[in-house]
Amino acid sequence: MSTSSASPVTVLGLGAMGTALAGAFLASGHPTTVWNRTPARAEPLLPLGAVRAGDVAGAVEASELVVVCLLDYASVREVLDPVAGRLKGRTLVNLTNGTPEQAREAAAWAAGHGIAYLDGGIMAVPPGIGTEQAFVLYSGSRDAFDAHRPVLERLGAAHFAGTEPGLAALLDIALLSGMYGMFAGVFHALALVDTAGVPAEEFAPLLGTWIGAMAAGIPHYARQIGSGEYADGVVSNVAMQSAAFGNLLRAAEDQGLSPELIAPLQPLMARRVAEGHGHEDVAGIVELLRR
Amino acid sequence: MSTSSASPVTVLGLGAMGTALAGAFLASGHPTTVWNRTPARAEPLLPLGAVRAGDVAGAVEASELVVVCLLDYASVREVLDPVAGRLKGRTLVNLTNGTPEQAREAAAWAAGHGIAYLDGGIMAVPPGIGTEQAFVLYSGSRDAFDAHRPVLERLGAAHFAGTEPGLAALLDIALLSGMYGMFAGVFHALALVDTAGVPAEEFAPLLGTWIGAMAAGIPHYARQIGSGEYADGVVSNVAMQSAAFGNLLRAAEDQGLSPELIAPLQPLMARRVAEGHGHEDVAGIVELLRR
Ligand SMILES: NC(=O)c1ccc[n+]([C@@H]2O[C@H](COP(=O)([O-])OP(=O)(O)OC[C@H]3O[C@@H](n4cnc5c(N)ncnc54)[C@H](OP(=O)(O)O)[C@@H]3O)[C@@H](O)[C@H]2O)c1
Ligand SMILES: NC(=O)c1ccc[n+]([C@@H]2O[C@H](COP(=O)([O-])OP(=O)(O)OC[C@H]3O[C@@H](n4cnc5c(N)ncnc54)[C@H](OP(=O)(O)O)[C@@H]3O)[C@@H](O)[C@H]2O)c1
Repeated sequence: MSTSSASPVTVLGLGAMGTALAGAFLASGHPTTVWNRTPARAEPLLPLGAVRAGDVAGAVEASELVVVCLLDYASVREVLDPVAGRLKGRTLVNLTNGTPEQAREAAAWAAGHGIAYLDGGIMAVPPGIGTEQAFVLYSGSRDAFDAHRPVLERLGAAHFAGTEPGLAALLDIALLSGMYGMFAGVFHALALVDTAGVPAEEFAPLLGTWIGAMAAGIPHYARQIGSGEYADGVVSNVAMQSAAFGNLLRAAEDQGLSPELIAPLQPLMARRVAEGHGHEDVAGIVELLRR
Repeated sequence: MSTSSASPVTVLGLGAMGTALAGAFLASGHPTTVWNRTPARAEPLLPLGAVRAGDVAGAVEASELVVVCLLDYASVREVLDPVAGRLKGRTLVNLTNGTPEQAREAAAWAAGHGIAYLDGGIMAVPPGIGTEQAFVLYSGSRDAFDAHRPVLERLGAAHFAGTEPGLAALLDIALLSGMYGMFAGVFHALALVDTAGVPAEEFAPLLGTWIGAMAAGIPHYARQIGSGEYADGVVSNVAMQSAAFGNLLRAAEDQGLSPELIAPLQPLMARRVAEGHGHEDVAGIVELLRR
């Protein structure tokens, strides 16, 4: 840890994530100015050396690099619109979760005010920030990324996804969508064994190992989805899977558990079978999602 | 491989899975008799030493151990009802996917005919059978399991889940439900990046690594679901997640992709927030699934 060359950074927003971000900057010696709508949330950071700004304008003026991490883009707009003039000539790194479209709008707003803009997607939970497990996806200004990369690397590995400002949000949202699907299945599975008196905690290691092993199939399905061809290397045809899937739904109902988290697969599989794709792989259902 | 002490086994059903099961028995030297409704499907197994029975009765009488793996329990009943008398005194291992209730019914049917019964859930795809990755869950007759365990281990690790005949099906279905949730999320994620011109195949390794890393959270959620307490160790509160989840749905819609595979999480998260659990973990949604 060296403070000699560490450049100042400002963090706007001290929720669970903003607090972790500020903590990582402080831990690596960056003079860190913080601001939060509810000022009390800065308190745990003060003994670590954080400077609490009295208002957003003061926070912004304290550093050339301003990192914002609030609940959503509506709060970001609410907080930053009044200080757009003060952000001029600085770099804004927005780590708030949003859609690609929102990222593009924010980039256009920043460009209109002479602010260098990077949009980012944090792929970590707060306790992971600053550890090897964390990575953050960035898109927008390549110059801003290159200039601030050493500071940004304090948070986790920094991946530049491209200059199109919406790209980081797109990849972030794709990864989160995959994760939420996984957790939807996992929650359903844990609740199901619980209904039968099997302790969810005892079942968890087997479930985790199984999910990890099955995730090895992702590249195979990615090739199919990329090419639109679902008939190669089929070892579990969708006609068979559709029959077995009916058992999954029935078993949940029998146990008094709503199958709503996994249910949407059923009509999609049934339609693939009805449309003559019963001998193909299940990934072909994505053809029914495209509009 | 030794044929000297290898006991005979019969396999009924030569779909993708039955063929893999028979292949594993043959590879380890077990005299293997096979039957399939469409007899031609036995052909690839004949050069490996399989004996093709002319009818189900002949197949059943060839071995004390009879393994059945058909599409569903309806086909199993159709095939086995006429030969119930011939199965008397033998061991029937049913590796067909079904619900716990179907497994209990089959066990009762077997008991009524003096047949030792094991219900099983295969946790592998056909190419995995006979490899280290495969495991099979069994429940029902403990004696039958102990007596035939060495033969059953040819297919993959054999786990005895309990004497309640529906237990293997329950755990099998829970694991499959988790897997289908994961793949639902993965298919959505791959389709989403594809809509933006990011090759699904290039994105797959990042997605796989991410899913694997996030699966580390399973034991934490299992403890919460087992105890019904969702407020401990929260680093990603459900109010925040519910806001971010709206972005996931909007991003898909913006890209012309139906979000139906991941959508069921939204009303559940929103209800948890509305009912005062916004500061808790997302796993609390399972409380809304219990009837
Ligand atoms: N936690 C995670 O696991 C995680 C992971 C990756 C990405 N993220 C993203 O990081 C962002 C922050 O998440 P978090 O976990 O820190 O959420 P959080 O703990 O719920 O904190 C929310 C933050 O937003 C602020 N805020 C909300 N509305 C505001 C408004 N209208 N004006 C000003 N400030 C407002 C809150 O200020 P007050 O304190 O005044 O309420 C607080 O600082 C979200 O976009 C989230 O999706 C979180
Ligand atoms: N493949 C996998 O990845 C996998 C993994 C775990 C468990 N399983 C389970 O294993 C079982 C078989 O799957 P599979 O992949 O082998 O399916 P499959 O390739 O589609 O084969 C289906 C089998 O069922 C037979 N069958 C269907 N209806 C029948 C009837 N009314 N009477 C007699 N036979 C009938 C078929 O005979 P014909 O050849 O005459 O049509 C064929 O042998 C299923 O319960 C499945 O859930 C499969």
